[in-house]
Amino acid sequence: MEFNKKLNNICGKKNSLVCVGLDVDLNKIPEFIKGKKDPLVHFSQAIIDATIDYAAAYKINTAFFEACGTAGWEAMTKIVNYLPDNVIKIADAKRGDIGNTSKMYARAFFEELNFDAMTINPYPGFDGVAPFIEKEEKGVFILCHTSNKGAEDFQKFSDGENKLFEIVAQRVKQWNKLNNCGLVVGATYPEEMKHVRNLTPELPFLVPGLGAQGGDFQLAVKYASAGKGAIFNFSRSIIYASKEKDFAEAAAEKTKNMQEEINQFRFI
Amino acid sequence: MEFNKKLNNICGKKNSLVCVGLDVDLNKIPEFIKGKKDPLVHFSQAIIDATIDYAAAYKINTAFFEACGTAGWEAMTKIVNYLPDNVIKIADAKRGDIGNTSKMYARAFFEELNFDAMTINPYPGFDGVAPFIEKEEKGVFILCHTSNKGAEDFQKFSDGENKLFEIVAQRVKQWNKLNNCGLVVGATYPEEMKHVRNLTPELPFLVPGLGAQGGDFQLAVKYASAGKGAIFNFSRSIIYASKEKDFAEAAAEKTKNMQEEINQFRFI
Repeated sequence: MEFNKKLNNICGKKNSLVCVGLDVDLNKIPEFIKGKKDPLVHFSQAIIDATIDYAAAYKINTAFFEACGTAGWEAMTKIVNYLPDNVIKIADAKRGDIGNTSKMYARAFFEELNFDAMTINPYPGFDGVAPFIEKEEKGVFILCHTSNKGAEDFQKFSDGENKLFEIVAQRVKQWNKLNNCGLVVGATYPEEMKHVRNLTPELPFLVPGLGAQGGDFQLAVKYASAGKGAIFNFSRSIIYASKEKDFAEAAAEKTKNMQEEINQFRFI
Repeated sequence: MEFNKKLNNICGKKNSLVCVGLDVDLNKIPEFIKGKKDPLVHFSQAIIDATIDYAAAYKINTAFFEACGTAGWEAMTKIVNYLPDNVIKIADAKRGDIGNTSKMYARAFFEELNFDAMTINPYPGFDGVAPFIEKEEKGVFILCHTSNKGAEDFQKFSDGENKLFEIVAQRVKQWNKLNNCGLVVGATYPEEMKHVRNLTPELPFLVPGLGAQGGDFQLAVKYASAGKGAIFNFSRSIIYASKEKDFAEAAAEKTKNMQEEINQFRFI
């Protein structure tokens, strides 16, 4: 099944547009877990078990696992394998290189690891993206307008008519021949999001920047959901909702709240 | 010591501007090595041993190791640890994200793994780069103009006066406060390289695209070396120079040839 269709099916079945971001930092997980065997896995599995009823997707931020070396990569492997099939599994890897190398990254995340989708950086251009979108069932979310301050540096570079992030959106629209391309559009820039939504109503958005980054909730949900698919990521605000014994329950409650709040404002 | 200074010191001591690219593909290494324990490590160590007299730097392409899962990450760790201190160790990782995440990538490659430098994608902007350039002894090569066809897609987007890759070069120039920033500039676009060199004479270039990608050797060496530092990467053309028992000798000969040929045309 086409990735974008699968994404919307799952969001529909679960009645949720929430993506739980597993940015699991060994320094931030509850003290009592740090001493356990495989603390990253233990923590992540507890978060997954607690939030699974309220989330449509899980996004594993590869940086946090790579920071733990080989043990971290092994933990990431265990966690993606633990995720059930009724959620979307996203590698937040921000990869992208020349074609020959992107092909190996696609193998890493779509074959060696069984992710459904990954985040991709558009800077190297089409041949750097092509290996990730060859199979309709595997999808990409391409960085369009990020949620950080640095988004101003290059993404808003303009030829007088269009800005770079708009050019990226328009090109991704062309690349979406197998209905497996989406965009990363940060919630912290609602006007830009509105504009990208108008340009590409057919592309799903992966929306970071709510929660800890403080994006405007109501506007982001309104704009992003006015098109064919949107998922809203929460990492720190869910997984570190509590640092005590009740961390999983706190994460569940937060996820449920986000699910309900988004459902209140969403268009789709 | 400042990374850019260290790079030039090592290039001077070794009288070489050659970087050996370890894009080690399990499907492409000699048959007789595939059956050995840790074939990626075995192959890479043999290549390093054979080429060490002629190379100033080694660039590990993370994609090829990630494609082998946890075993691949472990192999990469062993290989970077095997590299001696009198060469520059580059993680060709093309990472870059919002600051909070880039910090974890910096930890992965500069602390958990002991690389000297890594390749970075500029799209997320300054706060995505900052965590990588906090320490003067650790350096970055930021994608400016890549060697592939896709470089035309976004990197040449223009405001009428400047193209995106020129804007990137100018910004990296500003970011180079600790003398630890360089640029990735592909040999396959010599005119663009000449232009970037004029804009940023003080930044070292990491030059891909010679060898298997077919960039113009003489022009690339002439333009890139007309500034403060340049290293020229060869991956496939060195490491797969032979697929027989003599693969290491063939790699050594090819590296020596490249060293000599570059030294013939270089300005610095």
